This record gives sequence, structure tokens and C-alpha cells, in this order.
Amino acid sequence: MNGNAVRVALLGCGTVGGEIVRLLREQADELAARAGAPVELVGVAVRRPHKHPELGELLTTDATALVTRDDVDVVVEVIGGIEPARTLLLEALKAGKSVVTANKALLAEEGAALAEAADASGVDLFYEAAVAGAIPLLRPLRESLAGDRITRVAGIVNGTTNFILSAMTESGAGYSDALEEATRLGYAEADPSADVDGYDAASKAAILATLAFHTRVTAADVHCEGIRHVTASDIAAARGIGCVIKLLAICERSPATDDAPEAVSARVYPAMIPAAHPLAGVDGAFNAVFVEAEAAGQLMFYGQGAGGAPTASAVLGDLVAVARNRVHGGRGARESAYAHLPVLPIGAVATRYHVSLEVADRAGVLATIAGEFSTHGVSIAAVRQTGGMADAGADPVSAARLVVVTHAAPEAALAATVQVLAGLDVVHAVDSVLRVEDLGRKGVAP
Amino acid sequence: MNGNAVRVALLGCGTVGGEIVRLLREQADELAARAGAPVELVGVAVRRPHKHPELGELLTTDATALVTRDDVDVVVEVIGGIEPARTLLLEALKAGKSVVTANKALLAEEGAALAEAADASGVDLFYEAAVAGAIPLLRPLRESLAGDRITRVAGIVNGTTNFILSAMTESGAGYSDALEEATRLGYAEADPSADVDGYDAASKAAILATLAFHTRVTAADVHCEGIRHVTASDIAAARGIGCVIKLLAICERSPATDDAPEAVSARVYPAMIPAAHPLAGVDGAFNAVFVEAEAAGQLMFYGQGAGGAPTASAVLGDLVAVARNRVHGGRGARESAYAHLPVLPIGAVATRYHVSLEVADRAGVLATIAGEFSTHGVSIAAVRQTGGMADAGADPVSAARLVVVTHAAPEAALAATVQVLAGLDVVHAVDSVLRVEDLGRKGVAP
Repeated sequence: MNGNAVRVALLGCGTVGGEIVRLLREQADELAARAGAPVELVGVAVRRPHKHPELGELLTTDATALVTRDDVDVVVEVIGGIEPARTLLLEALKAGKSVVTANKALLAEEGAALAEAADASGVDLFYEAAVAGAIPLLRPLRESLAGDRITRVAGIVNGTTNFILSAMTESGAGYSDALEEATRLGYAEADPSADVDGYDAASKAAILATLAFHTRVTAADVHCEGIRHVTASDIAAARGIGCVIKLLAICERSPATDDAPEAVSARVYPAMIPAAHPLAGVDGAFNAVFVEAEAAGQLMFYGQGAGGAPTASAVLGDLVAVARNRVHGGRGARESAYAHLPVLPIGAVATRYHVSLEVADRAGVLATIAGEFSTHGVSIAAVRQTGGMADAGADPVSAARLVVVTHAAPEAALAATVQVLAGLDVVHAVDSVLRVEDLGRKGVAP
Repeated sequence: MNGNAVRVALLGCGTVGGEIVRLLREQADELAARAGAPVELVGVAVRRPHKHPELGELLTTDATALVTRDDVDVVVEVIGGIEPARTLLLEALKAGKSVVTANKALLAEEGAALAEAADASGVDLFYEAAVAGAIPLLRPLRESLAGDRITRVAGIVNGTTNFILSAMTESGAGYSDALEEATRLGYAEADPSADVDGYDAASKAAILATLAFHTRVTAADVHCEGIRHVTASDIAAARGIGCVIKLLAICERSPATDDAPEAVSARVYPAMIPAAHPLAGVDGAFNAVFVEAEAAGQLMFYGQGAGGAPTASAVLGDLVAVARNRVHGGRGARESAYAHLPVLPIGAVATRYHVSLEVADRAGVLATIAGEFSTHGVSIAAVRQTGGMADAGADPVSAARLVVVTHAAPEAALAATVQVLAGLDVVHAVDSVLRVEDLGRKGVAP
């Protein structure tokens, strides 16, 4: 079909869809030169056509009919959410259409079904825009590093929470005030749950882990904690040990041991990271992801993780790739999930912890508490006790604050320790438990 | 040929070649799973077979015969240099072998001929390892950003010179001492010319500009200055204006104006950049590249730019891609040079400058000098004069040091200014002229 147009159906025309339409029109000549054929928009499915008068006859409300139309070669989906996107894309793939989607939630839940449908029809399924917006990350993982053994992918993949945590760090504001500012500036949605509770990052972690480890990882496999419980005191405590708090998505390979086979883990949670780590300097709505591979060493990818134009850039890159394949024959690299590595439960994942306690200020307390850590096999790296006299609101004679930073310990051991500590007479309160991730930094600049 | 092995011939078995052999063997099962067929090494051409006893019957000294052997599907070249690599790869492509190469010098000079030969045979020509080692950079430019309009690619792409400049910055050492240390530690070769004179970076700039702007740019099109003339005083002067000196490769798109059509430039030179810019923090032998595109915004890629294992990682990524295409049919994305944009001569490229002069310390000198800048249309951004009294070695009564930092001006205008200044009675010496690049920083973290 060299010379004939590659015909595109677009599902959804919000911020990202609008940018896709604009770029397809403004860069039509360049896209045609790169793809080897014109890339032509032949239909746009929306719910409210009257909002897009400029699209005229391209508009339809019947997405189901659009995705199987004979004159459609590629379906681009930017609706988001599980349904109707899932049904529409499976129909499209079944009908032999290639698919480009930015839908992280769908991929994290139904990635296997979509990949199978694409394989069955011998068509492309690309989704660079689903993780870290404009940052080329999935193609490097899937292709550039296909000859290497990836050991870790860790980074900041949600701009909303990074904006909130950056604001809390800069101004000392509490979570609610920072969320309010993010909402006012358009960085957080009216219902911020998908972002602040970590679900968006967890979907992305599932996608990253699947590609990095050649093992199907779904959103349900990802341990997920959001940032709602992060307080101004936590931010201050992090600063006290030379750290900042970031919401991290971490996908890690654990080597086989005598007791356990090789496994992977995927998790999302706020964690303290050293202020000197490059990820600590990633502020506002930016994203950055570290990738470590055995031969390549440490790599970093940085850029805009969201927004209409950046996301559209990633979608169009995929679209040109699909179009090239349509013109020249062949398919792009697809996922491979041959490794089938087990996914570790969070209880088996070891990290360091920062535990802040309100304790009785009397002889023997530190020994008792240190004993409980030891009993559970959690090794203490540093302890700092500040007397009750200095702490506003605490009983000036009998209370003190104790901060314990541990060496790496399995989450299950730490959780058991904390449970016992909380029940001790000498512990008035467990104020906070936060992970500390040093991200295996080995002489990394910048 | 699904199920049948993809058979690889390797040309060269030094540091990188040795790592390729090791990884092909150690990761054979994983590579086969990812490629869809075993990736099998069937021959290695070297000059001194006795140095590689472990390769046994795979060895040959007849590279020419190897690259056209019937049982070879892919040729991997890590010899470097123009000949015999050029002839061997053209022969291989003509014989229908796909090619993976790390040879930046060859690509920067003969990229067009290689691309044509690959197109004529319908085979793949990949070279991710040629620029920035393990950092996935060329595939993102060629594929991920194929739907966007790249406006600039700028970065640190030579580890040797970055090591030397980092050492000079950290220790205050002069160029010679820093080079000696780099040589002792294995970061510089016995003949360091390709690195310190900028030729290696210039080859990479040519490759980056070609991909970024869809326009054939060769090494001869790249303006190239090395770091031999950078002094400890220059480093100190940079620090004085809040900058550090880095050897930059810069590929830039200049929009069309009333007087001139859209054009591109590619250049390599040491330049002062703001100490707060992320590239300023890239130390030692690391590489980092900023990419700016209209829709995607600013992206950064960071990692190890050289070394056996990182380079082998990039080669193997390409090799898996080639093997997949052999197994499943189709070809990867190829270069497109459809845009044919003119390449600006360096005289027409505008940057800011830091000019350091020794001048007579008497009334009217500053006015005279400022007048010469003005006459040539070079606007002054800042001036700093330090009296001769304070400068050791200068005549205490009659000499002073004058530092002028300009706004952006075409190189031709600045060069003409400096030429006139050097001939003035009141100018005792033009101590240094260095570019200042702010790299269009717009709120970039980290």
C-alpha cells in the first residue's frame, strides 16, 4: 500500500486528543515523509460532538462502528479507563487494526489480553504515552535494552504527586494546602484519588515491570501506597537525615538465593531519598526514571510526564512507527513475557525504614525498643532521641521523641516490629513509618 | 525461518567485541526468547587470532570472506575507523546481511552510502552504540520522536574530555596535568587527538543532527574545536560568572527568517554553561544529552557513554532488533533525509561570548573597546574590569584585565571584533575567547 494513506481513527478528543489532531494537521507533510505515506485522520469518536465543531464530518458518537470500519488502519485511543476502551480496542485488534493507546490503567489490567489479540491478528500495539508522557522510556526498555538484563527501574512517574510533595518540601505546607494549590493550578484533578493514592503510578509500575523483566505484572501485583498520610513533620524529618520525600515507582529484580528463586517486585510508595540523588532534584510536574542494567549500568530518562502536547508527541511517535510498518510490512517489537518470574509480596521486599516514635523518657526505654527491633531481625543503622522538654505539646517530664533508621529489612519484619512497639507501655505513639530508599547509588552524577 | 538461528559475524574483538561475545554466550537463552530464535555467533574476524584462543574455530583473519559467507545473517562491526570497515560493511549490505555497527567515524562520513546500500538490499542498519554508548538515544530520536519536531540536541558525548574538564574544575589543574591523569587511569588513549580535538564528538554530532533534522549532516559539516587550549584561568573565569566549562555537541534548528530559510547547525566546542544546568553536574566519564522538541518539550538522557559492557549492551539491543526482524519479517525504522535543510556555517551561528583582554589602564580604554563591539553589532551584556594593581605579573600602573560577556552574536561578528581589538594599541593581549551557552534553559529541573 506504499503511497496510499494510513488511515487513523481517534477515540477521545480531550486535551491529548485535541493536540493529536492539531499535530496531525500541522505536521502532515513531515509525518508523511517519515512514515512513507500520508497519515490521515478519518474519524474521531467523541461523546459530545457539539464541542468539536472544527472536526465536522470526522465526528461520530458510534465508537464501536468506527473501530471496525473498513477504511481504518490504526485506532488511537485516548479515552482512558477500563471500559469502553477495553472492548473497543479488543474489537479493533480483532478486526486487524493496529492500536496506539495512552491508557495505562487498561494496559496494567488487561495488557495480556491486548497483547494476545495483537499477536493473533499480527498487528502493532504501542503505548509509549502510557508511562512518563513524552519521555521515550518504553521503547528503550523494549528494544534498546533487549540485549541486556535490567535489574531495576525506579523513578517519579506521577506529576501531580511530585508537584504536591515538591510544594510541601519548598514551603513547609501540609498535604491539604499543597493539594489545594495543585488543584487550583490545574496539576490535580477534582477527584485526585488516582494520583494521590498511587493508583496511576502503580499502573505505570506494572507496565514498566512487565517490559523490564519479560514477566507479566498487573496492577494487582503492585503494592501501592499514596501520599495522603505524608505530613509536614515527615518532610521535616526527611530533611533531618539529608533526604527528601518522593513518591517512587520501583520495579526490582531479586537474584535467586539458596532459599528462593529469582523474583521481581513492583511497588509504589512515598519514600525518603538522599537529597543529593538526581531524583531528589526532579521538581514540580516533571518525571524522571532511573534504569539499571547489568551491562549498560545506570541510565536516567527525564522530561515532561503529562500534558496535552507531550503526551501527543509520544502517541504520534508510535503512530509513525505503526504507519511505517503498514507501508513497509512487518511489525514492531512486541512484549515478551517468557520469563514468568514470580512477583514478591510486599512483605518479602527489603528496604530501610525511618520510624518516629513518642516514648516515655525514662531509663531502659531505648534498650527495650532496640531489643524489639533486634528480636524481629531488623538491624538499626542510626538512632536519635530528643528530650520531651524541647517538644511542644509533649509532657515536659515524661515524653521524648525517638527516631530509628534501620538497615534494609523485609517489610514483614518491620511491620511486626512496629506492631509490637505500638503495644508497649513505654511507646506513647508511633508517629510515622516511612521507607528510606538509597536507590543503589554508585557514584552517579549529576 | 522462525526457529532457525540468526547467525552473527563479528568484526573485531577488542574490549567491546569481547563483551559482545561474553554476553551472547551468557545470555543466549534470554536473547533467543526475545528475538524469537537463537542468536548464534558463527565467525569472528580478528587480526591476531592467537590472542583469542577461547574462540577456537570461530576465528578468521579473512574478514572479507566472512562478511559475505552464506551462513551469515548479520554483521556486527566494532573495528572502528574508516577502512577496512567501510568496504566490509558495504560488501555485507550488498550481500543482504543486516549490519550493526558502533563506528561513529564511518557513519559520520559514509552514512549516506551505508544507508543507501541497506535500502537497496532491504536490510537493517543499526548503530545505537555509535553515540553515547549505552544510553538509548538514537532509537528515541529516530522512532519515539518521529511524530515531533526536534529543535535542539545538545550534550556531553565524549567521556574523555568530560573527565579532563571535570578534573580541571575540581582540582584547578591545568590541561596537561589533567590529561596525564586521564591517560594514567585509562580514560584517555595514548594518542588522545580524536577525543581532545573534538573529532569524536563531531562525528557524534553529525549522526545526531542527521537523525534529529532528517537532513544528511556529515562530519565535514560540523564546526569542531577541542579542549587543548582550555586553561586553568578559563575554568576560574567560568566560575567567576557562575559557570563551568564543558565540551558540548550542539545540533540546532534555526527557524526561517525574512532573510534566510530554515536551517540547521552542528558544532562542537568547549563552552561555559550555568553551574545550575543539569549538564554542569555530569562529571567524569558520563554522558548526558538534552533533546528539545516542540511538543515533547525538554528531555534528558543520561548514562555511561563508553566502556566495553555499556557499548556491548547497545550493540546487543540492535542485534536483537535485527534478529526479530529476520524472524518475523519487516525492517526497523531507517534514516530519512528528506528535509535537505541547509547547514549553517559557524560564522552564522549566534552564541554568547566571554572575552578576556589585557588592556591599558587609562581613561577612555573601556569606551574604545565598547565602541568596537558596538561597531560590529555585538551587544555587551556585562563588563568587569580589575585594576592592574591587583594582578600579579601585570604592570602595576598601566595594565588592567577586562572581561566582556556578550549577548548572542554571530560568530563572524565576534571574530571580526576580536581581530580589531587585537590590533588596538590599548589592548595588550586577547587572553581568551570562550562561548557561553545557556542552552535555552526554561525552568528545567533537576
